[in-house]
Amino acid sequence: MPRLKLTLAYVGTTFEGWQSQPGGNTVQDALEAALAKIADEPVRCRSAGRTDAGVHAIGQTAHAGVPGRRRDVDWRLALNSLLPSAISVLEARWVPETFHAQYSALGKTYAYSLWPERSFCLPQRQPFLWKCGPLDLSLLRAAAGELTGRHDFASFMNLGTPVAHTVRDLRSIEVAELPPAAPGLPGEIVLRFTADGFLKQMVRNLVGCLVLAGKGKLSPEDVRMIRMAQNRARAPETAPPQGLCLERVDYGEDGLGQDRRQRVCGPGDDG
Amino acid sequence: MPRLKLTLAYVGTTFEGWQSQPGGNTVQDALEAALAKIADEPVRCRSAGRTDAGVHAIGQTAHAGVPGRRRDVDWRLALNSLLPSAISVLEARWVPETFHAQYSALGKTYAYSLWPERSFCLPQRQPFLWKCGPLDLSLLRAAAGELTGRHDFASFMNLGTPVAHTVRDLRSIEVAELPPAAPGLPGEIVLRFTADGFLKQMVRNLVGCLVLAGKGKLSPEDVRMIRMAQNRARAPETAPPQGLCLERVDYGEDGLGQDRRQRVCGPGDDG
Repeated sequence: MPRLKLTLAYVGTTFEGWQSQPGGNTVQDALEAALAKIADEPVRCRSAGRTDAGVHAIGQTAHAGVPGRRRDVDWRLALNSLLPSAISVLEARWVPETFHAQYSALGKTYAYSLWPERSFCLPQRQPFLWKCGPLDLSLLRAAAGELTGRHDFASFMNLGTPVAHTVRDLRSIEVAELPPAAPGLPGEIVLRFTADGFLKQMVRNLVGCLVLAGKGKLSPEDVRMIRMAQNRARAPETAPPQGLCLERVDYGEDGLGQDRRQRVCGPGDDG
Repeated sequence: MPRLKLTLAYVGTTFEGWQSQPGGNTVQDALEAALAKIADEPVRCRSAGRTDAGVHAIGQTAHAGVPGRRRDVDWRLALNSLLPSAISVLEARWVPETFHAQYSALGKTYAYSLWPERSFCLPQRQPFLWKCGPLDLSLLRAAAGELTGRHDFASFMNLGTPVAHTVRDLRSIEVAELPPAAPGLPGEIVLRFTADGFLKQMVRNLVGCLVLAGKGKLSPEDVRMIRMAQNRARAPETAPPQGLCLERVDYGEDGLGQDRRQRVCGPGDDG
């Protein structure tokens, strides 16, 4: 069956996450309904990872097999005309049947947006950030330095489908302060995480920890101890979902990646 | 009565514009309801300009007189705790009773966001732009050069409350292409208009004209002729409201401006 690779953006606010649910109000359900309408038969799709309820994406990736008789369809155009306005297909391309949105991925990047005020924010940005209050970015950066690298991140994994192991290579945590959107306002703070893969709610758990560090309530040493404990009970609360966005799934220069099935045995993970 | 100057941001999507209406679903109605609740008496406010239904703001400005017994209230905090999530007060400060949000203004800046595709966009940005399709920015810039300066803009004014005259000083039109939000996407195009004031729907009428120029359907010479005709019937259609945002009202360095009542006689204009 011809295989499509789809790059997707969505506003997660009104969805119960990526993964198909009996209620049907998920991104996967909406996408499969549109695919089936064009294919005129049921179509299943698989994504690089299952984002939670309320989490956004500008670079989620999925694959789906579609009937050969629909080879000539402009799938991006057709899907965008059927999908709800909160989901867009940014790219649709044909890939070999060996391509797998999850197993072929070489890495992923999630961004988490923080707002250094508590009482107000730009309403335009309110669905996309966490109003966490003031942060000391030098403290936050020092704590981030204790988290990057190849480590066991069991302290930052919430319970869910069992995974083969909890070691991930957190290649980088970028801390950026954006220019203010209007005079007199502070800038948004973006934490950008790139890794070979993420455990369930790992990014949001890392953010919960880094925000406490940025408030001076955890030292870099505390953060290292939390990571080394390999115990979820030691880490702070999970950050709320709306600040999180799956920015990019990396498949290398040709966009096809390589089959990592031998290495990553768990199901689709999530930020 | 002590006078407050309020700097406001709002998402215009769900409001019937700024100005109070019998139905009550306007930004002014929401703001006056919150002001009255804190003041414990009716409070009226005046804005620098009346934005239309669907138009957004990150720098709208209003003034309101409030009872002296509420001098100690943190008005920004109190208003933000009462306002709907689509409106935020970014700043609240005490100003002399001579300050007037409209008459003291020295100028205004509106931004209009365009998306150079028709079939899709980032859903995160969909409420804030016009999917106008591909544009040649060098053509658009050449046409913009025929519009800046002190001119009679009657060709770009929609009917509404009568104004004393239709001459405005359009100080600049900035054309910027933003960096792409995700790999493979085009960048948004932002047209930023700064003037001493704007006529009713003037910015959206200018945008309607500039987009046709950017598509090669109007030459710079055509655009100049449209302006010089001083006749609304000669100009193209009004651009849709959702791309427009009132970015800033300029009151000079001290934020108080100067009384222009002698010069500008019309009511609050709009972009």
